[in-house]
Amino acid sequence: MIKKVDHIAVAVRDVEKAAEFYEKVLGLTLGGIEEVEGMDVKVGFLPVGDTRIELVQPLDPNSGLAKFIEKRGEGIHHICYEVDDVKEALQTCKARGARLIDETPRPGAHKTLVGFIHPKSTGGVLTELTEHPDGS
Amino acid sequence: MIKKVDHIAVAVRDVEKAAEFYEKVLGLTLGGIEEVEGMDVKVGFLPVGDTRIELVQPLDPNSGLAKFIEKRGEGIHHICYEVDDVKEALQTCKARGARLIDETPRPGAHKTLVGFIHPKSTGGVLTELTEHPDGS
Repeated sequence: MIKKVDHIAVAVRDVEKAAEFYEKVLGLTLGGIEEVEGMDVKVGFLPVGDTRIELVQPLDPNSGLAKFIEKRGEGIHHICYEVDDVKEALQTCKARGARLIDETPRPGAHKTLVGFIHPKSTGGVLTELTEHPDGS
Repeated sequence: MIKKVDHIAVAVRDVEKAAEFYEKVLGLTLGGIEEVEGMDVKVGFLPVGDTRIELVQPLDPNSGLAKFIEKRGEGIHHICYEVDDVKEALQTCKARGARLIDETPRPGAHKTLVGFIHPKSTGGVLTELTEHPDGS
């Protein structure tokens, strides 16, 4: 079911500022920055190996992401795995006992479909599944 | 400098129990479990793509890891990147302005050498660098 880690999401106050550590210290390269419609976030991806660091900045001060930063400070927010079919994968996880945040997929960055599994059933790790539009 | 994400570490109270989500729900496979000398932790790795999820359980109740779980609950703890030469990479990061936790490398799991960068200089993300003994 799981193909790979699609990205590791880091909650940040400012994508460009947060990218400095990854670019100037670690030598990674920031790809395009995108605002994700309907999710009120600004994201920037830094490819590394077969996965990516996703810097994710809340645009809505009342969002869960903004509250996460307010409460805990900037830091690692979730792990996202790539699957072939996110709708099927969500239902498989549910059938295997996981508690879903998203019963059905919704649009993510870069025209992906995504769905989240609740940290209560993953040992405290907010877990996202994503499907790429071209299956890549 | 950075080859790939070596692992994503998740702080857990019990490696075997925490592995159930990754094995039974996500369908990943838990590799060998190892106690790391000198670090007072028990670790279990689950390979996924070119990286791994590392479940890390504190064995010393007074360790930073135990306090992390006590304060925040189980959850994502750090990101580790693989480099060719961890001693050189730590010095490069320092020269580029990062604050190091480890000025010199120390032994990690599976005969690796590791060193940590302080979250104060990474935007809140505890960041580890590791070098594999065979360069793989």
